[in-house]
Amino acid sequence: MGGSPTEKSNEKRIEPRKLKGFRDYNPDLMETRSAMQSQIRKVARLAGFREIGTPVLEYEDVLLGQGSDETDKQVYRFEDHGGRRVAMRFDLTVPFARFVAEHQGTLVFPFKRLQIGDVWRGENTQKGRYREFCQCDLDIIGVDSMAADYEILASFCDILSSFGCGPFTMRLGHRVILSGLLQHFGIPEICHTAALIAIDKLDKIGVAGVVGLLEKIELPTGHPAADQMQKLMEALLPASNDPKAYLDRIQSLCAHQGAVVQEVQRLRELITVLQERSPQGCTVKIDLSTARGLAYYTGVVFETTLDQLPGFGSICSGGRYNNLADRFMNRNLPGVGGSIGLDRLLAGLEELQILKSHATKVDVLVAVASTDAFAAAAKIATDLRKAGICTDLGLVAKLANQFKHADRLGCRYVITLGTAEVADKTCNLKDMKSGEEKKSIPQASLLSLLQLSQTS
Amino acid sequence: MGGSPTEKSNEKRIEPRKLKGFRDYNPDLMETRSAMQSQIRKVARLAGFREIGTPVLEYEDVLLGQGSDETDKQVYRFEDHGGRRVAMRFDLTVPFARFVAEHQGTLVFPFKRLQIGDVWRGENTQKGRYREFCQCDLDIIGVDSMAADYEILASFCDILSSFGCGPFTMRLGHRVILSGLLQHFGIPEICHTAALIAIDKLDKIGVAGVVGLLEKIELPTGHPAADQMQKLMEALLPASNDPKAYLDRIQSLCAHQGAVVQEVQRLRELITVLQERSPQGCTVKIDLSTARGLAYYTGVVFETTLDQLPGFGSICSGGRYNNLADRFMNRNLPGVGGSIGLDRLLAGLEELQILKSHATKVDVLVAVASTDAFAAAAKIATDLRKAGICTDLGLVAKLANQFKHADRLGCRYVITLGTAEVADKTCNLKDMKSGEEKKSIPQASLLSLLQLSQTS
Repeated sequence: MGGSPTEKSNEKRIEPRKLKGFRDYNPDLMETRSAMQSQIRKVARLAGFREIGTPVLEYEDVLLGQGSDETDKQVYRFEDHGGRRVAMRFDLTVPFARFVAEHQGTLVFPFKRLQIGDVWRGENTQKGRYREFCQCDLDIIGVDSMAADYEILASFCDILSSFGCGPFTMRLGHRVILSGLLQHFGIPEICHTAALIAIDKLDKIGVAGVVGLLEKIELPTGHPAADQMQKLMEALLPASNDPKAYLDRIQSLCAHQGAVVQEVQRLRELITVLQERSPQGCTVKIDLSTARGLAYYTGVVFETTLDQLPGFGSICSGGRYNNLADRFMNRNLPGVGGSIGLDRLLAGLEELQILKSHATKVDVLVAVASTDAFAAAAKIATDLRKAGICTDLGLVAKLANQFKHADRLGCRYVITLGTAEVADKTCNLKDMKSGEEKKSIPQASLLSLLQLSQTS
Repeated sequence: MGGSPTEKSNEKRIEPRKLKGFRDYNPDLMETRSAMQSQIRKVARLAGFREIGTPVLEYEDVLLGQGSDETDKQVYRFEDHGGRRVAMRFDLTVPFARFVAEHQGTLVFPFKRLQIGDVWRGENTQKGRYREFCQCDLDIIGVDSMAADYEILASFCDILSSFGCGPFTMRLGHRVILSGLLQHFGIPEICHTAALIAIDKLDKIGVAGVVGLLEKIELPTGHPAADQMQKLMEALLPASNDPKAYLDRIQSLCAHQGAVVQEVQRLRELITVLQERSPQGCTVKIDLSTARGLAYYTGVVFETTLDQLPGFGSICSGGRYNNLADRFMNRNLPGVGGSIGLDRLLAGLEELQILKSHATKVDVLVAVASTDAFAAAAKIATDLRKAGICTDLGLVAKLANQFKHADRLGCRYVITLGTAEVADKTCNLKDMKSGEEKKSIPQASLLSLLQLSQTS
């Protein structure tokens, strides 16, 4: 209004910028991320998991009040055009619970579910943590068995191993057994949540720190004794990597608690089968100090860390829950499941500089020396692509610039066609690595020539 | 507060429901959708397109004011935890413009971009239209050439053809040529937008309807004459499927407009190469009444319809634009691109009942007759999966229920192991189709037996 056209256009110019905690994926990273998602789909499908999808936006009351208060605060929520209170999903578990309740009539139980999708949390950003990130969930719902626990844990081990992310360790804890131990050392059930929160801090504050916190818990009868808490921590921490001795000791401590003994036996079977079959680079061990924050776990829980990045935190975790969908329905559906934090893992692998690239590599550029050669060049490009050779086509006017572009893309070969080549159905082939150029190759023999050079 | 525990738990139960205009993807549909996305990645990568990713949430001012006012109204927007005005992306084009402006220093131009992602629009829902839907975009930015136009259109034809979605037709229009014709028939440039809006309604209101609208346009000198508008529509509509005659006629009408003649020549070359190479089932034709709503197109535009669903609307459209990122930067970057509306296409294929299923099919279930056989059963399942055979494992307690589950999943084979089979390293194999059961097969020969039966 009133300004000159130039001023107006400057006024309108908007700074290209992203929200804090959000990132762009450049091609190298995005293609690797997509390839990892494909890999997850492949491994999970071979194990009979079925992929589902749910909306990013849900009714606010469907999503809230399920995780912790802290999670609720981080949820992006607002009023939509129709005056409805809506929220963006902050995980894939709560939408899955809603999905199961809504579709229980058509699902075949036990249902093995795969879901891959982005989730959003407005949390304080840290290195390697974003407000938008991808979760890859596997769950088996409708059965409470060691076999189902095994399938989930083994499938996650197979997926992580297929990524080539270096050696990793999966630690198994157990809610019922941990409660049994707390009980044994004088902490009644009513105080277990406080104890779990203390134990969950072990990585950060060490044994002495946790013992200090445990001592401060207010029991109905006073405070826990320091020596008892010290003994509790000794019992919790695996003395060696021998799960048999570890579990024998715990079983003897909880011998009078029938339910705990039964779960120790189940965990014993689980760790045996998992250790027998764990893929190369994958260590599975029992570590009952693995408490996991969320309240809804009711059996085995697990966390997974990269051996080369011990302080980085868990890249894959989950556990058994027996009341996934009870907010939505009367039916009781036991389940077991977990998530890979794909963007978190990607950040870890970037940091370790061991991210296996799946970036597109253009093999060949078909260059056009004169405009009347374009149709023939396009045909060659089509044929090469059909044969699985990644091929670009000269898009800019000058031949020299097409070669420059091929060079910048890192193409191995440049094929050139002009008027003469079109007339006698030939082309020129330049090896960009050696610099060698072959003239007047019959177009018909091009494909076999390139395929031969690819395998040699 | 004060109610009985039962009342409280009823109070807390939440109805499992979705927002209007949103949908769940059950496994059959989701797996097919994922497979189609993989297919797009495969075809696009072979043609040298590079995949990128951008956030779902952006600053409001980055997204708004780019499409029409109508689009702006549909955008989901709100204030985030930090008091920032944010919006959910309503297409992938505006975020791409921001991406290009932000990363222009590191991108290699011409840049061939692939992006697949969900977008959100709070529009009125109709059959087959959702408020959350997936777009698959291809663009080539940094060059204005017929070759780039060709690459985009040919790649979309290849992708759609690879879906097996039945015969389809891609119609090409052209902004400059259409303007030239309007000019020729007495409509000055200042009134072209009004004319485009009228012509865009051809499908719905027919030639007479459009002529009626055109007559009502207020020119600086009065209103267009009815007979001129009739002649305009006759020139616009292809009399036959012969692009040469069609373009010759237009060229003669606009012979005095140099820029138009040049574009007619370019379109002539484009349609020739496209028609020569168009895959089976794909018709490419020129139809200058293809106007496309959006203001930012500056050259060729296209729309694609399924021949078996003529009234369904376009499933893939786009065009050339020469100022993609000018809101964000001074540099002028010409481009050409388009989108496949994947969920729209899925809805169309569902309606036609020609959706090619990519749903997971479980081949084998390894059943566990006694708990001590679990480890051996798990090992067999691992081996079969490694060999690419989709295998489930008995997860429920009773053998009869495991068989029942295999039946419901439609497994072709059930392998059974009990104590005896573990001892002598054998298993039983039941063909669920013929009912035939083979006893005491050596575990070592299982894989080759199943692979043989798969190929036969």
